[in-house]
Amino acid sequence: MRTCRGIASLRRALAACAGKQVGLVPTMGFLHEGHLSLVRACRRECDVTVVSIFVNPAQFGPSEDLRRYPRDERRDSALLRQEQVDVLFVPGENEMYPSPYRTWVDVTGLDSKLCGRSRPGHFRGVATVVLKLLHLMRPQRAYFGQKDAQQALLIRQLVRDLNLPVTLRILPIVRDSDGLALSSRNVLLSARERRAALALPRCLRRASGLVEAGETNARALRAAMAAEIAREPLLTIDYIAIVRLDDLEDAAEIAAGNTLVAAAVRVGRTRLIDNFIPGGMSC
Amino acid sequence: MRTCRGIASLRRALAACAGKQVGLVPTMGFLHEGHLSLVRACRRECDVTVVSIFVNPAQFGPSEDLRRYPRDERRDSALLRQEQVDVLFVPGENEMYPSPYRTWVDVTGLDSKLCGRSRPGHFRGVATVVLKLLHLMRPQRAYFGQKDAQQALLIRQLVRDLNLPVTLRILPIVRDSDGLALSSRNVLLSARERRAALALPRCLRRASGLVEAGETNARALRAAMAAEIAREPLLTIDYIAIVRLDDLEDAAEIAAGNTLVAAAVRVGRTRLIDNFIPGGMSC
Repeated sequence: MRTCRGIASLRRALAACAGKQVGLVPTMGFLHEGHLSLVRACRRECDVTVVSIFVNPAQFGPSEDLRRYPRDERRDSALLRQEQVDVLFVPGENEMYPSPYRTWVDVTGLDSKLCGRSRPGHFRGVATVVLKLLHLMRPQRAYFGQKDAQQALLIRQLVRDLNLPVTLRILPIVRDSDGLALSSRNVLLSARERRAALALPRCLRRASGLVEAGETNARALRAAMAAEIAREPLLTIDYIAIVRLDDLEDAAEIAAGNTLVAAAVRVGRTRLIDNFIPGGMSC
Repeated sequence: MRTCRGIASLRRALAACAGKQVGLVPTMGFLHEGHLSLVRACRRECDVTVVSIFVNPAQFGPSEDLRRYPRDERRDSALLRQEQVDVLFVPGENEMYPSPYRTWVDVTGLDSKLCGRSRPGHFRGVATVVLKLLHLMRPQRAYFGQKDAQQALLIRQLVRDLNLPVTLRILPIVRDSDGLALSSRNVLLSARERRAALALPRCLRRASGLVEAGETNARALRAAMAAEIAREPLLTIDYIAIVRLDDLEDAAEIAAGNTLVAAAVRVGRTRLIDNFIPGGMSC
């Protein structure tokens, strides 16, 4: 595995891969099995696997957890070497946003809903850094997790709108044995918070069970989900949303393959998200 | 010359050019010698010359001259065939902005000054369409005229910020025999307006003469330029600006190679721009 800290060194590493199918797995590091499932898919489907680790300051608001965000480059690097990743890109902030940095990408409409409501500017940061990484690596395929469903939908729209020649692969949520969706932020939870957090996947399982049993009414589903969260006093609801995949507007009914059921909660200082897409999502 | 009206047909035309150096000349059509100077440079420097003609609605404000903007595809097409252009891309609006279109690019700071002040949203439209064209053609080189200096500077910043693998070529302003900078909008002028418009290049020649004679004070230069325009009652000044190339902030003194001297005026319903860069501009 070749580790590149600068853009010049990355370009040299990629020049050696000319003519090969390149796959990109962009991450913020502190890797877990969710990330590794993306890396393994990339390894199966592409000739060259490039992973980036960059805790992108542009996607954190001033009151958010940029400084608290967990980091462990040594462990990450060892994990990726084990997975036989070809190139690891670990740029510094000045490499990605050299001063004066001025250019930002907005995916309007999709960026202000759900997580965008409590994280203004977040998706501008995400869209911009992903576009930069796509320009730097020029991959044929790029891999994202469905855990960040809104991010995936927004990048799908960005790729379509900007005519980017890349195939997106959105892979399923990976969960811990207790059901909690894997997230680098889970390590920030105390044992008590962690137990409380399980109400989040429980509320999604409840909704999923009701949908399987034939319930399609969004209001009824949201009520059942909210009740599940309300039983856990350590959690506060940020949002419970049943929305159309293409515009993230409220759906009155579940439409298989075009509805996102998503929730975000706060546990202490940590914010957690989870979701499912009845009928699955295509790119 | 192969004419492509759709993205699919463009991709097929470009697939046949794999491995060759591609140059892009993006235009809004109604071509003049300024455009053709870009086409000729592209032909000299690249294996494949791609010209786009798209009157980009996103860069016109609601009160601007989108509908009045001159068009003549047949004449343009004949001129480009004469120049032995390889590919002409003439997309429709739905091809470039299929509904729902959501993604926009802002080059903050550079987009709100000079022309951006009287044309809010203009540079967002420019940045977005240029980025889309760069993704579609993946050229090694892209050609722009210095007549639209702010546009050129903004695209230079966009290319740097977004790590786009393209070399920009900014070529000199081409003028008519009477000194007026060539512009597709010149055809909109009446004979009387056209004569009046000559005060614009005159004011820039006056500034250029003063700079050559050793004047470096921006205030003195702006005053001389304004006086030149004021002598022509049909013109109103939109702006007279002496600014730094890198951030478009007011410069107190001319610094060779890092100062833009620019003016915009209105003649009747038509807005005209012109500029010079003491010491020239590098990309």
